[in-house]
Amino acid sequence: MSKVKLSLEEAHDLALRCLLSNGCDERNAKAAADRMIQAERDICPSHGLFRLPWYASGVKSGRANGKAKPSVEQLAPAVIRVDGDAGFAPIAQEAAHRPLADSARQNGIAAAGIVNMFHIAAMWPEVERLADEGLCGIAVTASYPYVAPAGGIKPLFGTNPMGFAWPRKNAPPLVFDQASSAMARGEIQIAARDGHSVPATAGIGPDGEETTDPNDVLKGAQLGFGGYKGASLALMIELLAGPLIGEFLSIEAAEDDAGKGGPPKGGELIIALDPARFGDAGGFMAHGEKLFQALLEQEGARLPGARRFQNRELTPQNGIEIPASLHQTILGLM
Amino acid sequence: MSKVKLSLEEAHDLALRCLLSNGCDERNAKAAADRMIQAERDICPSHGLFRLPWYASGVKSGRANGKAKPSVEQLAPAVIRVDGDAGFAPIAQEAAHRPLADSARQNGIAAAGIVNMFHIAAMWPEVERLADEGLCGIAVTASYPYVAPAGGIKPLFGTNPMGFAWPRKNAPPLVFDQASSAMARGEIQIAARDGHSVPATAGIGPDGEETTDPNDVLKGAQLGFGGYKGASLALMIELLAGPLIGEFLSIEAAEDDAGKGGPPKGGELIIALDPARFGDAGGFMAHGEKLFQALLEQEGARLPGARRFQNRELTPQNGIEIPASLHQTILGLM
Repeated sequence: MSKVKLSLEEAHDLALRCLLSNGCDERNAKAAADRMIQAERDICPSHGLFRLPWYASGVKSGRANGKAKPSVEQLAPAVIRVDGDAGFAPIAQEAAHRPLADSARQNGIAAAGIVNMFHIAAMWPEVERLADEGLCGIAVTASYPYVAPAGGIKPLFGTNPMGFAWPRKNAPPLVFDQASSAMARGEIQIAARDGHSVPATAGIGPDGEETTDPNDVLKGAQLGFGGYKGASLALMIELLAGPLIGEFLSIEAAEDDAGKGGPPKGGELIIALDPARFGDAGGFMAHGEKLFQALLEQEGARLPGARRFQNRELTPQNGIEIPASLHQTILGLM
Repeated sequence: MSKVKLSLEEAHDLALRCLLSNGCDERNAKAAADRMIQAERDICPSHGLFRLPWYASGVKSGRANGKAKPSVEQLAPAVIRVDGDAGFAPIAQEAAHRPLADSARQNGIAAAGIVNMFHIAAMWPEVERLADEGLCGIAVTASYPYVAPAGGIKPLFGTNPMGFAWPRKNAPPLVFDQASSAMARGEIQIAARDGHSVPATAGIGPDGEETTDPNDVLKGAQLGFGGYKGASLALMIELLAGPLIGEFLSIEAAEDDAGKGGPPKGGELIIALDPARFGDAGGFMAHGEKLFQALLEQEGARLPGARRFQNRELTPQNGIEIPASLHQTILGLM
């Protein structure tokens, strides 16, 4: 596959110009471009420029608000609600961050329900940012019906990722961000695009039968990771990012889109905990390190997210590569 | 295998008498017996009387306090800490319930860190109780090092279950309680006891190789469900039920036990959310039902935990069966 090499600055500029020329204002374009280039910087292509055509078409079609001005409301002493003004997740998360972190410090634990936004961004930047401030963060979001429930064969749940971050001293935070499905939707789409097969645990075809063809899975249903337990997590996340905060279920997001193929409208729940308020303010960080050290002493064992932080050291020098076809698609959108 | 049939009352009486004759006071014995018989009532034998010898030996050896008087401290507006006074989980959870539920109503979200207790109970009764009051509950706990980290072959994490409950109207709450490991420890122990094999995904032998022999897995390491993603959850839970609340990691619980084979000393984090404070007080419950209905319309699909509630209808009439060998062991402890 032919590739195009870009510096991180060139990639950011490409995303920014594409979003601006498709109807985003400066602030919205920058928030979305920053998020995509954070993913490219960490070599997570499924949340990088690969998503740009979806962002651009969402704004161009008028479904997503490229000039969103999110608003924040305090619903309870430890609960805030952010209305994303029908924009994309990054600008709404930006609005949620400070009030959520402050509320966690004040109350020990706090939650932000973000509603009325289009969520096609990665989860880890937001929880990582909380952990950069010494907080522990958990974030969940739903999407479109892609994943079958336990025992069923039709898509019902989103791939419903959970992001988690824990603060570390003199090291990047411990961060993971993983779908409740065996594979991320973007990874299956990339496998289909590139003609690769997927593991048989990834999903089932429209007939409910096992398959390794990503196109069959995209027409059928994805499966939860580890089978029914991943499906239980997807169900939990559906409730937390939907009914709890008064936002769409994945099936409602699909109804709302009505087959137009735009990004999913929905919500996100972020929980922030301040470990300094849980009884071991002086010791919690060294205590976490004890676990990480025991893990790293095992040959071959790795901390989740470690590769992203290694990649982050390299890409500012080496730049990134994106498929030439994607580069052409993006240029065609401007 | 020879079985002994008991009514729920007989089973409860058996547990109560066994705990009393091994050094528990009435209140502690009742809390633990109630919890074990809730599990038997729902036909979850791995958290039923199967656990009784561990409870009894824990108290008899002097490691666990059979006369525990848990205390509650407010650490932050939305955080309470319960000191379990070195007793078993059920009596500490009993002490945590009311203050936690009240704090969730007041703040929208609240957390309880329970420390200094021996946790060998199921998680679902506590979150189910929150959901019975209209709250959403999430609970996590660590145990002993049983599960290898991603890429490693030696036990590091506990099986680290997560319990979740969501309130329903005119129906029992949606509740699940699942280990981060592919199988619960108790299930592997029961397979070993009964001479059954386990799935190859359950764990690895001491040599790091795949195995279906439960005895090999018990000597080697269990694996996370779905592989590395389950291991990530186990890591998250280790941090939340350990360093966050100032309690043991699973490896520290094992050091503390020093090979005596007693129940693990450790902590539990319970998060309670009041959906009525998240912006859709009038609609959240019907909204959840919309998801459950869509799920139940799929042939073969089931809600997690549904079987427990079906069993609960039957056992008050039909009684329960326990292995005759377990019955003999229990009688021998009195």
